[in-house]
Amino acid sequence: MADYRELWDSLDMDLEKHDQLCEVLPEFYGDIYMTQENRAEGMNYFNFVVSEIHGLRIKELNEHRKDGGKVFGSFCVFVPDEVIMAADGIGVGLCGGSDFWVPDGEKVLPRNMCPLIKASVGAKLSGTCPYFQSADMLVGETTCDGKKKAWEILGEYTPMHVMDLPQMKREKDYTHFKEEINTFKEKVEDLTGNKITLESLKEKIKLVNDKRRVLQRLYDARKSDKLPISGKDSLLITQVAFYDDPNRFIQKTNELCDELEERIEKNISVFKDDTPRILLTGTPMAIPNWKMHHLIETSGGAVVCEEACTGTKYFERLVDENITDLDSGLQALSDRYMGINCACFSPNEGRIEDIIRLYKEYNADGVIYNSLPFCHTYAIEYKKVKDALDKEGIPVMMIESDYSMQDAGQINTRLEAFFEMISMNKELAI
Amino acid sequence: MADYRELWDSLDMDLEKHDQLCEVLPEFYGDIYMTQENRAEGMNYFNFVVSEIHGLRIKELNEHRKDGGKVFGSFCVFVPDEVIMAADGIGVGLCGGSDFWVPDGEKVLPRNMCPLIKASVGAKLSGTCPYFQSADMLVGETTCDGKKKAWEILGEYTPMHVMDLPQMKREKDYTHFKEEINTFKEKVEDLTGNKITLESLKEKIKLVNDKRRVLQRLYDARKSDKLPISGKDSLLITQVAFYDDPNRFIQKTNELCDELEERIEKNISVFKDDTPRILLTGTPMAIPNWKMHHLIETSGGAVVCEEACTGTKYFERLVDENITDLDSGLQALSDRYMGINCACFSPNEGRIEDIIRLYKEYNADGVIYNSLPFCHTYAIEYKKVKDALDKEGIPVMMIESDYSMQDAGQINTRLEAFFEMISMNKELAI
Ligand code: SF4
Ligand code: SF4
Repeated sequence: MADYRELWDSLDMDLEKHDQLCEVLPEFYGDIYMTQENRAEGMNYFNFVVSEIHGLRIKELNEHRKDGGKVFGSFCVFVPDEVIMAADGIGVGLCGGSDFWVPDGEKVLPRNMCPLIKASVGAKLSGTCPYFQSADMLVGETTCDGKKKAWEILGEYTPMHVMDLPQMKREKDYTHFKEEINTFKEKVEDLTGNKITLESLKEKIKLVNDKRRVLQRLYDARKSDKLPISGKDSLLITQVAFYDDPNRFIQKTNELCDELEERIEKNISVFKDDTPRILLTGTPMAIPNWKMHHLIETSGGAVVCEEACTGTKYFERLVDENITDLDSGLQALSDRYMGINCACFSPNEGRIEDIIRLYKEYNADGVIYNSLPFCHTYAIEYKKVKDALDKEGIPVMMIESDYSMQDAGQINTRLEAFFEMISMNKELAI
Repeated sequence: MADYRELWDSLDMDLEKHDQLCEVLPEFYGDIYMTQENRAEGMNYFNFVVSEIHGLRIKELNEHRKDGGKVFGSFCVFVPDEVIMAADGIGVGLCGGSDFWVPDGEKVLPRNMCPLIKASVGAKLSGTCPYFQSADMLVGETTCDGKKKAWEILGEYTPMHVMDLPQMKREKDYTHFKEEINTFKEKVEDLTGNKITLESLKEKIKLVNDKRRVLQRLYDARKSDKLPISGKDSLLITQVAFYDDPNRFIQKTNELCDELEERIEKNISVFKDDTPRILLTGTPMAIPNWKMHHLIETSGGAVVCEEACTGTKYFERLVDENITDLDSGLQALSDRYMGINCACFSPNEGRIEDIIRLYKEYNADGVIYNSLPFCHTYAIEYKKVKDALDKEGIPVMMIESDYSMQDAGQINTRLEAFFEMISMNKELAI
């Protein structure tokens, strides 16, 4: 990626530090991804995207900005991309998934915090993430305490707009979020200089829905008895969806899905028969956080679905495309986004229903509840989820883990015991 | 307190476990409070209140309930007592301040959580807090993630109403909280069977304001050069204010203030001259959490003010008494309560202004920023506070500490170094 140095320099990056990051990533990706056997051909596109992660897409963002376009960085599936796109802006997901950024985040944040927040702030402060450097505005939200307060600090370094997400789901909370989307729309219009029209909003609602449709198609392939794709690869695709060009992403993922559906017809699987099928639920897995998938799939399990922001929360349920004016458009957006069952809501019974439904839909054998450390909302919600799954007779295990690999051996041991228990249960059931 | 056993039994308490709690408290209080020299006579009332903490007041609550009255337990200074009282209810503060309750809380909550929340939930689950057992309804709020999600679990054990506190302070957020107070009013009216009238609301607004006035009078005495009362004693008084009978509390505290003002006239102080004057800011100190005050005042400092829920946040600023109808009453309540500068708001610049103002008003020499562990909101906000205090040349130190006494020696050492630095600065300034 040597020929991007000039571009990175123009983005005011810390080139030396960035070199360190670029040195480790290919090997890291190679170890985790390229060691997989029998991968679909269509994954080549995603290998390419990762190899060009700080290159090609950054160049595209740069060209967009040269032409007067704006880039918006966000950290949460509650920020409606449709609004950004309808004003000809580009939205990119910025959640930090690398341990590399944590120490820089800890310079301004407490250590006892979720690594995702520390890495996100550290990515900006260290000047080593070209996406952060390309963003004309960051869009935060008041989902959890950690993020809500971290945005105040991040806002000292870069322009920031914060959307206020309600904490409950009563009718008035839907209205409140609709108003927040409207405020956001005005901000976006101001910065881009483009007015959002019914036509542009309709068009982008359709486009983002298409992205959701192709992800649903990908996930549908994972419902199959014979798994045509690993959980690890599926996760990567979802992660790429957060920043890739949407049209290209839809096309490439559809091509991959053609291949996967062919595999299903031909009974081709990337896992042995009887591999325990795992529904993973919990906190987001931001790129390049592939840890839990890697541990599960090298300990004898297969991840068949993610009930997470980097999973079903991102693409399930579409925005109503039959809007008749801007107001009904904002309402349709609020309705769809407020339907996400994030642990930051209280109560959040919908998430329990989702987990049980997905467990059945994806024909899973067990649930792993994955939480980043110091995430109060997901950690506390575990009790309610576990109580409900116990009642249904669904095996569940909680794993709390950060970005470092120090606990890998320990998690491995726990996973193997869990999978063994699942397999024994299955045999007994026969 | 042996003659209360029948009463406790009728409240469905775990008597054996409660005996263990009752055994430790008197000695604990004795060590911390009765070792102080030259205390005001008026503190005898508060010694008495503590000695009767699970007795006399519980009997009063019981009599109130026998007559058909209702008791409401709350955990936060955002819950408007005026509404409870205006329907002839009694409100009691229930925040857990004892390590005794933490293990029971940890049975249903993650360990990585603020001890205040774990102790509050543990107090209920263990059946050892007669206030919890006397409450006909608990009132939670969506202040921090930890509390918001813990209420879902607590609600499995006891009737619970949750007030939705906004996360920002825009005009519409004030309106939102007014609506929340209205919903709460309806709940209170339902449970008590009493309609709140303009007259009853006016009367109770006046009464709670009187409680605020007497606390302000107490705190005014602490502005004096010669401190007539220790920080420890002042904290106790504020803590007692959360559950004592308001009329008796006002009378007894006014009597104490007469004495304190006499002391000031006579130049009587409970501290040596030149004792470093400390403004304590941060997380709430729920009874019997006297740890930080005790450590500060046995390490050579004096606490002159608490910018905390158990401090100025509880009593500063009055509710407008000139209301003309119920609607303006609710608005007045929202205006006063939303004025509290809790770290759960974003942004929360008002707290920084408060800290600097209080530092000057109370003629402090330094600020100690006290945070319970795993409290994201206060821990993250430290950076902004420190930056602002640095700019003003105000010395500040962060101490994160839970309810156990294991870190006492270490904190002691840090405090002594801090006080020495303050004293040197003062000498240099002369
Ligand atoms: S993982 Fe938890 S603490 Fe971290 S950003 Fe998400 S909700 Fe917040
Ligand atoms: S101390 Fe912090 S974490 Fe604990 S209840 Fe208060 S705001 Fe929540």
